[in-house]
Amino acid sequence: MAIVVVNVMPKPEILDPQGKAVTNAGKRLGHEGFSVRQGKRFEIEVGEVTPTVLEEVRHFAETLLANTVIESFEVCS
Amino acid sequence: MAIVVVNVMPKPEILDPQGKAVTNAGKRLGHEGFSVRQGKRFEIEVGEVTPTVLEEVRHFAETLLANTVIESFEVCS
Repeated sequence: MAIVVVNVMPKPEILDPQGKAVTNAGKRLGHEGFSVRQGKRFEIEVGEVTPTVLEEVRHFAETLLANTVIESFEVCS
Repeated sequence: MAIVVVNVMPKPEILDPQGKAVTNAGKRLGHEGFSVRQGKRFEIEVGEVTPTVLEEVRHFAETLLANTVIESFEVCS
């Protein structure tokens, strides 16, 4: 079994209210210099990592894991 | 400016209903062999990456980004 990771982040031009909330909470706790953006991480267990499987994961991420209008994703194996 | 990434994942022994839902949705779409676990990814913009800053990020992650009872986290710079 192998793990393929898909990272999904809000695109840079998209407001990120979750990240903003975390940034502000950090400020209240004394972490002044941190600016946070929040996204999602998916760990996908696959049989083995082949180019075909990676292509399938890419399709999976595009249709199900990321809303590509507002989010970008990357597949890391 | 530099980016430090914090990955937060549910611990292996913890049920992951989000990941389960994604896994099942994948099955309905024909991706039979994928088992998914869902976590969070935080991209933290910091001034520069020094051991002190990384230690502060680790503390930030421990207190604010992860619920260490049920989630594990890693700091990647």
